[in-house]
Amino acid sequence: MSGLICFLSDFGLHDGYVGVVKGVILSIDPVARIVDLSHAVPPQDVRSGAFLLMASVPYFPSGTVYLAVVDPGVGGQRRAIAIETGGYRFVGPDNGLFGWALLRLVRGAELALEPDGDRLRLGEGASAVSLSRPRFWRPEVSATFHGRDVFGPVAAHLSRGVALDELGERIEAIRTLPFPRPVEVEGQTKGEILYVDRFGNLITNLEGSALPPDATIRIGDRAIAGLSPHFQQDVDLIALIGSSGLLEIAVPSGSAAARLGVAVGAIVSVSPAPSGPGPLSLEAIG
Amino acid sequence: MSGLICFLSDFGLHDGYVGVVKGVILSIDPVARIVDLSHAVPPQDVRSGAFLLMASVPYFPSGTVYLAVVDPGVGGQRRAIAIETGGYRFVGPDNGLFGWALLRLVRGAELALEPDGDRLRLGEGASAVSLSRPRFWRPEVSATFHGRDVFGPVAAHLSRGVALDELGERIEAIRTLPFPRPVEVEGQTKGEILYVDRFGNLITNLEGSALPPDATIRIGDRAIAGLSPHFQQDVDLIALIGSSGLLEIAVPSGSAAARLGVAVGAIVSVSPAPSGPGPLSLEAIG
Amino acid sequence: MSGLICFLSDFGLHDGYVGVVKGVILSIDPVARIVDLSHAVPPQDVRSGAFLLMASVPYFPSGTVYLAVVDPGVGGQRRAIAIETGGYRFVGPDNGLFGWALLRLVRGAELALEPDGDRLRLGEGASAVSLSRPRFWRPEVSATFHGRDVFGPVAAHLSRGVALDELGERIEAIRTLPFPRPVEVEGQTKGEILYVDRFGNLITNLEGSALPPDATIRIGDRAIAGLSPHFQQDVDLIALIGSSGLLEIAVPSGSAAARLGVAVGAIVSVSPAPSGPGPLSLEAIG
Repeated sequence: MSGLICFLSDFGLHDGYVGVVKGVILSIDPVARIVDLSHAVPPQDVRSGAFLLMASVPYFPSGTVYLAVVDPGVGGQRRAIAIETGGYRFVGPDNGLFGWALLRLVRGAELALEPDGDRLRLGEGASAVSLSRPRFWRPEVSATFHGRDVFGPVAAHLSRGVALDELGERIEAIRTLPFPRPVEVEGQTKGEILYVDRFGNLITNLEGSALPPDATIRIGDRAIAGLSPHFQQDVDLIALIGSSGLLEIAVPSGSAAARLGVAVGAIVSVSPAPSGPGPLSLEAIG
Repeated sequence: MSGLICFLSDFGLHDGYVGVVKGVILSIDPVARIVDLSHAVPPQDVRSGAFLLMASVPYFPSGTVYLAVVDPGVGGQRRAIAIETGGYRFVGPDNGLFGWALLRLVRGAELALEPDGDRLRLGEGASAVSLSRPRFWRPEVSATFHGRDVFGPVAAHLSRGVALDELGERIEAIRTLPFPRPVEVEGQTKGEILYVDRFGNLITNLEGSALPPDATIRIGDRAIAGLSPHFQQDVDLIALIGSSGLLEIAVPSGSAAARLGVAVGAIVSVSPAPSGPGPLSLEAIG
Repeated sequence: MSGLICFLSDFGLHDGYVGVVKGVILSIDPVARIVDLSHAVPPQDVRSGAFLLMASVPYFPSGTVYLAVVDPGVGGQRRAIAIETGGYRFVGPDNGLFGWALLRLVRGAELALEPDGDRLRLGEGASAVSLSRPRFWRPEVSATFHGRDVFGPVAAHLSRGVALDELGERIEAIRTLPFPRPVEVEGQTKGEILYVDRFGNLITNLEGSALPPDATIRIGDRAIAGLSPHFQQDVDLIALIGSSGLLEIAVPSGSAAARLGVAVGAIVSVSPAPSGPGPLSLEAIG
């Protein structure tokens, strides 16, 4: 147990919501240490939250409790859950927020996607419960702020050492967002933009380790010849293996998102060079 | 004593002012834990600060020291004060910032508003001092940054266990902002918008527990029939009891403030339905 | 040793980069306390970072480790360094970020600027190393995120008590930005704007303690008669000695930067009054 709580939300830092959750946590576990991952997830954007959890999870120590609240269905029928795997615990709504982080943590070994791709079946080494025991919540639960009234208190109890199975009944699967897998089409690998960071860097779903350094990367009507080893200041548009190990497209002193006018979901294709398909194949990307 | 300091200001997070205050605090009390409530209070907006303190105070553990600095009069004649009640301490300028939080904490029992409504007389169970003893401050006090030079150090000394009465002379009343009380007019309850959060939710001064679920809520030229139990995604404009127990008006996937074009101070009226005044009474609101 | 890490960067708070660095730090030193100075330094703006470090450094306790990452050259040839002086340690890129803080800490006594002004020779009481020992880094070092992979881990090891000289080989000088010294011209002191804070206050390089209270301060086509003792609400444009001891120009309820249309680098001149040069000298400033 590390007593460390990593906190992600879409609450923003303006209105005191984040501070109030921390007050509640520290009322239950006065020695918890709380690290903010981000509270600037766009409101109700579960997909961005799922990406940030996936990107950060290897960097926190074993024992960390992830408290994540991006919760458009608060007060409705979605379940509240806690998950344990690989020494980590996760607490939040069962709306897909945790699927990508779990898939990265266990590298697919013990988890299985169900056929329709939006449920993750938990296998050996991973367990989850539906939060159903109000004694671990605040005495009064509002309809709109489960971060304060349910998830924050549960994270604090986990941080104090309460076992997962005390919190509610076991469940066998959780919801996930379908992870966009790259596809091979006519000798090209086609992926997409997963996330745009505040610098305007475009982070793709393409594993950098699988890419040849002299590949040609295409996005929109632009083609980039080869991977840069780092941010080169004197080049307009570059492709490089970013800090999360994924292919990124960047404008070193500006915003690639603004320069290219693209957003999450935009198609990125990679072809081996020089023997790969030439510029004429650009129509195929369209 | 919890050693916990809850810190609110209008300093913003850009310029290092918040970090510097924390450096000063930790120089005095190295084991203090500091939780940020918000540093995005609009510059010099004492009223927003007063609301955020009132909204958060029940959620922090007993023993918490509130350090709050929204201080348009810094360097001028306003007093610097510390207050103790209900196990909490408050440190900051005597400009009305703390009045609403105190009124909520003690539920009016031991405090009394003076006739003109902008002074709060402290009764049994509440005490305050004027900060007048420089040995609890930084050796040099600037004219513009009492958060760093006076209030932060005093909060740290309180956190370490210094008693309130060591900090200065007792005072009998502090300044408060007049709290806008709802009024009853022709069978309607009329209140107003107290605060607009970053989602554009409109938080009123109307206690949710006093409202019938089928009430009609009017704001501007819009009428909302009944309270929603939670954020419903498929409805344009809803009224619900928010997380602070107050009536809120929201657009579930958007901003009610932008949709309605209203701000703090806008009138909200509630009438019991179906026997309450009909749409014709809207002129009375306008 | 204080176990305190003061963290400055241009990462922003949106994308989880700051949280990830903290996760890495706490994996190495689970009891480190981390205080954010600012993560809103404009991207790659080393000069703003240097100012914020200089302005904050006297307010953190001895033993603090400064982790500062504003690093346009990440992945390129710039060195990674750690510095120790006056009880403080600094970790980050060798691109000028730390020079102004060091000059303030040691007041020039043991440090010397080299003739060309962009290198600071470390004398007695100050030492620095080039970070060259990968055992203090993460096992895999990305090309774009040395905050996570090199600087954060090194800061954590320093916080745990590792000695500076274990981290790499001694170096004799570090890079600095030339500090703009005020100059005397025809009886006037000419300085410039060093930093604009989020309120639009203009912070100059002119030491307040050297200014006569009745001086005339000129910026753009405006002249301000005398220093204000504090923020006066009823005056349009004021000059005062700010919280960092430097001359500031402010609009008490607004933004001086917006009102005057000036930015970092704008010229500010001070002349003693009433015997100083009159308004006719304004051309000399323009």
